Amino acid sequence: MFSQTVEYALRAMLYLASIDGQAATSKGIARRTRVPSGYLSKLMRDLVLADLVTSFRGPHGGFTLARLPEQISILDVVNAVQPIRRIRRCPLGNPEHTSLCPLHRHLDDALATIEGIFRETSLAELLRTAGDTSLLADLSNRRNTPPPPRAP
Amino acid sequence: MFSQTVEYALRAMLYLASIDGQAATSKGIARRTRVPSGYLSKLMRDLVLADLVTSFRGPHGGFTLARLPEQISILDVVNAVQPIRRIRRCPLGNPEHTSLCPLHRHLDDALATIEGIFRETSLAELLRTAGDTSLLADLSNRRNTPPPPRAP
Repeated sequence: MFSQTVEYALRAMLYLASIDGQAATSKGIARRTRVPSGYLSKLMRDLVLADLVTSFRGPHGGFTLARLPEQISILDVVNAVQPIRRIRRCPLGNPEHTSLCPLHRHLDDALATIEGIFRETSLAELLRTAGDTSLLADLSNRRNTPPPPRAP
Repeated sequence: MFSQTVEYALRAMLYLASIDGQAATSKGIARRTRVPSGYLSKLMRDLVLADLVTSFRGPHGGFTLARLPEQISILDVVNAVQPIRRIRRCPLGNPEHTSLCPLHRHLDDALATIEGIFRETSLAELLRTAGDTSLLADLSNRRNTPPPPRAP
C-alpha cells in the first residue's frame, strides 16, 4: 500500500535528518540508504520542489534539510513524492452525486486516518525513538564504515 | 493510495451484494459498475479464487456472492485483489534487524489501522447506510433502465 517511492523518500529524509545539518551528495545518500541512485536523484528533485530539502552546488555541494527535523512530518515527505489523494468527488463521475456514497466516504475516512497518523509524526520523533534496531543506527554505522570494495 | 483495482473490485462486490443473491454476468456487472470488461473479468477470477464469489456456467450462469453480504468485509475484498502487505521484516534486508526500526514500525502501524477499519465494515453495512447519493442507488437505477443505444 505504501510504495517503494514513499519508502525510499523517507529513508533519504531520515538520513539527512540524522547528520545534523551537514550536506550529503546524492551519491552518498543513495549509498547510505541503499536506494538506486537514478531513483534517488528523481526523489531529491521532488523533495527540493516541495521545499523540504535545499540543494547546494559546487565542490562542497549536496543536500540538506530545508527545515529542522521537528518541522518535517512523515506526511510532508509522502505528499512531496506521492501525494495522498483524498476522495472529494464521485469516482464514477456521476454529476448527481453531490456528496460521497458510503463506499467512497468509507475509503476517504481511511485516507484521512492515514493522513492524521502521518501528520502527527515528525522525522525528529522517529530519530528519538530509535533503538538498537533503528534504520538510522544502521545507516549511521555505515557512515563510519568504508564502502565495500567494488567488483572488478 | 487505494488503487483502481481495489475501487473496481469493491464496486463489483457491492453490485452483487445489492441484487439479493441473483446471478449477474461479467458483462452485466461491467456495465452496471462502469468497470472495463477485460479488467472486470480478471478481478472476478481473483474474487472466485478467494472464495468470495461463486461462478455458474451455462445460459443462466454468472456470478453470485459466495457468502452473505454481512459476512464479507471490505478487507476481504481488498485482500482478494491487492493484499495489504504488512511489514514483518526490515525492508533493507539487514539480518541484524530482528525487530522493526521506528520508521517501519510506524508505517506498519498505519497499515494495521487501515486493516482494522476495513475489517470492521461489511458490504451489508455499506448497503444499509446508503442514502440518495449511494453508489448502489446509482447502480440499481441503472438496473431498471435500458442501456443507452449504441452508436451506429
